[in-house]
Amino acid sequence: MTTKREDIIEATCQLLELQGYHATGLNQIVQESGAPKGSLYHYFPEGKDELVAEALERAGQANVANIERALAAHDDPAEAVTSFIRLLAGYVAESGYRQGGPITAVALEAASTNERLRLACRDVYRRLEATFADKLRPAYGDARAAQLATLIIAAIEGGIILARSERSDQPLLDVAGMVGLLLERTC
Amino acid sequence: MTTKREDIIEATCQLLELQGYHATGLNQIVQESGAPKGSLYHYFPEGKDELVAEALERAGQANVANIERALAAHDDPAEAVTSFIRLLAGYVAESGYRQGGPITAVALEAASTNERLRLACRDVYRRLEATFADKLRPAYGDARAAQLATLIIAAIEGGIILARSERSDQPLLDVAGMVGLLLERTC
Repeated sequence: MTTKREDIIEATCQLLELQGYHATGLNQIVQESGAPKGSLYHYFPEGKDELVAEALERAGQANVANIERALAAHDDPAEAVTSFIRLLAGYVAESGYRQGGPITAVALEAASTNERLRLACRDVYRRLEATFADKLRPAYGDARAAQLATLIIAAIEGGIILARSERSDQPLLDVAGMVGLLLERTC
Repeated sequence: MTTKREDIIEATCQLLELQGYHATGLNQIVQESGAPKGSLYHYFPEGKDELVAEALERAGQANVANIERALAAHDDPAEAVTSFIRLLAGYVAESGYRQGGPITAVALEAASTNERLRLACRDVYRRLEATFADKLRPAYGDARAAQLATLIIAAIEGGIILARSERSDQPLLDVAGMVGLLLERTC
């Protein structure tokens, strides 16, 4: 039973990444997940927004884990952050520029019209920022680490959008290079 | 007659900003624009994607003009870029965090599934980048100006998403501050 629930959440994450919130219908989620339709309403009685909010939460957890793992591989914060962004560029390229975080599309489509999903996106962004800020704090102090983390998240989100529009990893590699410069030359 | 065509494009830009590509239907565009339904098919015989591509083109022109005007107000590139981002933060806040560029939502929703709109978004981003790069080139040289311009566009796009998710201008103000630092400390 748990597996079907996971399959539904996983299919939702993938469809959100590929095509965003409004284009992703419950029928398609059921179809992609391979779960029987009744199980969707069983696990998510409130329907699409409950399911999407949980998919965002899950994608956020996975992102935090990926960021933590990548950042832990380097002591130097500039090196750690730039190597994470380069990893991400490789991931976006490998997906044929079809993937790169399901959160942003939902944030843009739903921020103005769906308070539940706006808050779900906001909470994920806050956790991603906190993950970078934790790595930066010892070198930069609280306030500067928080500002740098906001810049990093913004530049990564925007860099993914540019990479998908260009079908090239170059925008994200440029973001990695410039964020690295900023981190090296700031205190 | 020109006015009705303009009204349709204007209504399309606003709806794309507010709710993205898939949620924006032709009926709603007709309703918001006040134009008779027949005129939409008269001006845009290929339908929604022709209209959206033209709306993106128009939004891109308006963005380039706004950026050029803001950048021309300051000789120093760091000052020019940060004051543009602060202006933008004010615009997003004044809209009640409902607006901030129709391009990004279309880029995310359509990049994987609609080649015409992906290219329309890519072309707008390239022109925005070129506008910043032109301002930066005298101080930083060709290659570095291009990388900085990519970082600036990425951070602005992502900063708008964070500002809308937080319903706060702080993420964009942080982006302005950090981009300013990078420009001051780079050569």
